[in-house]
Amino acid sequence: MSAGWFRRRFLPGGPLPEPQPPGPRSSPVPYHRPRFLRGSGSSPGATDTSRRSDSRPVRCPARGRTLPWNAGYAEIINAEKSEFNEDQAACGKLCIQRCEFGIEDEWLTVCPEEFLTGHYWALFDGHGGPAAAILAANTLHSCLRRQLEAVVEGLLATQPPMHLSGRCVCSSDPQFVEEKGIRAEDLVIGALESAFQECDDVIGRELEASGQVGGCTALVAVSLQGKLYVANAGDSRAILVRRDEIRVLSSEFTPETERQRIQQLAFIYPELLAGEFTRLEFPRRLKGDDLGQKVLFRDHHMNGWSYKQVEKSDLKYPLIHGQGRQARLLGTLAVSRGLGDHQLRVLDTNIQLKPFLLSIPQVTVLDVDQLALQEEDVVVMATDGLWDVLSNEQVARLVRSFLTGNREDPHRFSELAKVLIHNTQGKDDGATGEGQVSYDDVSVFVIPLHSPGQGSGGH
Amino acid sequence: MSAGWFRRRFLPGGPLPEPQPPGPRSSPVPYHRPRFLRGSGSSPGATDTSRRSDSRPVRCPARGRTLPWNAGYAEIINAEKSEFNEDQAACGKLCIQRCEFGIEDEWLTVCPEEFLTGHYWALFDGHGGPAAAILAANTLHSCLRRQLEAVVEGLLATQPPMHLSGRCVCSSDPQFVEEKGIRAEDLVIGALESAFQECDDVIGRELEASGQVGGCTALVAVSLQGKLYVANAGDSRAILVRRDEIRVLSSEFTPETERQRIQQLAFIYPELLAGEFTRLEFPRRLKGDDLGQKVLFRDHHMNGWSYKQVEKSDLKYPLIHGQGRQARLLGTLAVSRGLGDHQLRVLDTNIQLKPFLLSIPQVTVLDVDQLALQEEDVVVMATDGLWDVLSNEQVARLVRSFLTGNREDPHRFSELAKVLIHNTQGKDDGATGEGQVSYDDVSVFVIPLHSPGQGSGGH
Repeated sequence: MSAGWFRRRFLPGGPLPEPQPPGPRSSPVPYHRPRFLRGSGSSPGATDTSRRSDSRPVRCPARGRTLPWNAGYAEIINAEKSEFNEDQAACGKLCIQRCEFGIEDEWLTVCPEEFLTGHYWALFDGHGGPAAAILAANTLHSCLRRQLEAVVEGLLATQPPMHLSGRCVCSSDPQFVEEKGIRAEDLVIGALESAFQECDDVIGRELEASGQVGGCTALVAVSLQGKLYVANAGDSRAILVRRDEIRVLSSEFTPETERQRIQQLAFIYPELLAGEFTRLEFPRRLKGDDLGQKVLFRDHHMNGWSYKQVEKSDLKYPLIHGQGRQARLLGTLAVSRGLGDHQLRVLDTNIQLKPFLLSIPQVTVLDVDQLALQEEDVVVMATDGLWDVLSNEQVARLVRSFLTGNREDPHRFSELAKVLIHNTQGKDDGATGEGQVSYDDVSVFVIPLHSPGQGSGGH
Repeated sequence: MSAGWFRRRFLPGGPLPEPQPPGPRSSPVPYHRPRFLRGSGSSPGATDTSRRSDSRPVRCPARGRTLPWNAGYAEIINAEKSEFNEDQAACGKLCIQRCEFGIEDEWLTVCPEEFLTGHYWALFDGHGGPAAAILAANTLHSCLRRQLEAVVEGLLATQPPMHLSGRCVCSSDPQFVEEKGIRAEDLVIGALESAFQECDDVIGRELEASGQVGGCTALVAVSLQGKLYVANAGDSRAILVRRDEIRVLSSEFTPETERQRIQQLAFIYPELLAGEFTRLEFPRRLKGDDLGQKVLFRDHHMNGWSYKQVEKSDLKYPLIHGQGRQARLLGTLAVSRGLGDHQLRVLDTNIQLKPFLLSIPQVTVLDVDQLALQEEDVVVMATDGLWDVLSNEQVARLVRSFLTGNREDPHRFSELAKVLIHNTQGKDDGATGEGQVSYDDVSVFVIPLHSPGQGSGGH
């Protein structure tokens, strides 16, 4: 991204963009479920919430199909919210080759020993149609592989060299790198950040070419060199569940959690709101009766609250409106990071959502080799449909009680993923005592961290 | 701050600012030490580092002078870095009156019972001259009092009302406030944020009027309604030391810790760098030999690192240069938040520092009433001169060993402040084992949290 890019892209009156020749119109992205579900059966979902009889089956991979690390997976479609399941998932082996070899389109193949290999699990929660999530599931791993291959020499060194070539321009270069504390894992984080951006660009181009719209969140776990990287852009969540510990591995990015960043952009570029919205936060939308009164408010620089005298412009619709799960950006979107949405505008206006959205993930690193792993340590990744109705503690209780009672079942991680899904459908398995129902699409990976010889790849 | 303010203030080509009539030139801010040091003696500092014989005395309040909560204080001037001690300090009783009364200029007075009272301790670390820190020490508490008085009805309510008047426009207004989780402490946080901004404006006006320059960091502790608020803008630090706990109450704001915010502003407004600096971070400043090579770099959106091919523009001086204590913003400033610096420019250029600086503090709340306080629980606040040579753990060891051995001394908190200062002067009191010397100004408050009946005000 060059300086000035933002203004050229989003602001009126900036230099005109380079004219782009209209490309050939491509065909729409076809709808499908994750490849690893091919040939899978399904177990019936909660009949009381199904749109037609058995229209909400719980799906998981066929019994003979092993996912990386013997991970479990299950999903359920939403209840009449949309025609398609807008969640998507992908997983596989990541084969990082040295740049010089440059063999494209290797994915889920056996790799020669000399190359770096890892594993990849990803969940995408779409909105405004299933296309963006499908494109992300088809594309992001390739972007990541390319980004990792571009820095693979740095990954293989004890300490990333200042120059990728390994050539030392200054004899003290290694010391500069040391002082900045740059480690190989920082290159993986950088590769994840770049891969999300690259994938976002691809989705923008593909959707434009096929005349489709939409966006999606992205939650990715990558195992590489003894570490597990969790990259998140959106409101899915990953947690580590151990016998005595629950560790949250991702943060949610919503208009509420990113209020200050979003308000600040509107402060710097008020024209992005086209005079239709107020960037200020109030406890509720203001109305005529509030005029002249001093009411509670927050601006971009504030963590605390103060009072301001209400003016007419404060009565506009708020940039961020609603509370908790209901919070919406520009009255339109419930997440503030993700992929796609390049064409998304506020209904009946020309106001774009994209300038307020970030495609950059936050990346957490779990040093698996340092964990003193136990048999039942797992990472649970799921889209927001799960976390809307189950707390981290409830999920951990379900995980622990299921795994303790099912030590011998080779399919226990997929069975556990199914149990988690069932518990979002008002079925109380005794551990939650709540029986809440999620009407959203729900997708879950359960990744065992300690499963030698079980999965399709070693750790 | 209105929208568009930033552009009008800092960017060329924006709408012209309103012409201001030149005000009468005021006299320079006179140099002085904190008022509570009047009549104080001093003990000699480290003679091996003094600029002339006994020119680095350790100063603390006179024996008869009691600070709020019986807090201790001590300071030492730098070793030849500047003519004056550029640190400043202030403390006193905060008398919050209801707005209607509007009595100005009450400070350190006995307040009628019906008003809210609190206490205030502040440290300011100046740079580019002592004037900004002196103005901040003279002014910030008044700004804070005004800001608190403007919301005092909200502070006194169980839950801040949506309307300051208490009038309910919507019957569900209390519910909206409840759902947002707005508490009285959020109003104090908001008041601190606004007070820092207001004080920054005052300093800008006063320095311009008197033809002086400079800036300062600000670290403030405020006790109010059973809570201790710690507001920090700069690189001073406050920690809570208890028998079994060290709790950090502030974060440092430096070009290094605020890299992403600073780089992002330069990304949005490249003209702020006037073509003289590169916003990208590299392990060291690049030179001709690096051209065309792929080197480690980070841009504003990255937490990780990646490689980029070096272009000519990458050889410019970096926006943030150096590492750790040596890191400088635009080659000029070691802090990224604080007050003042309105006129500060990069040497021999027209490039302003101010757009990259924030006057907003980060506020931490310590719920003192919930702490189950013990006799020797204290908050240590100090300017960076202390923390440059002593770690939190070393300070905690000094605090614990001194207080345990000096239970009966009524001046023990000032004595402890002196001990901490002595330990920055190469005097090893046995607890640190380091004997490092700070050549900077050093100022320290030690605030006991459990001292019934000792101080000038109850808790």
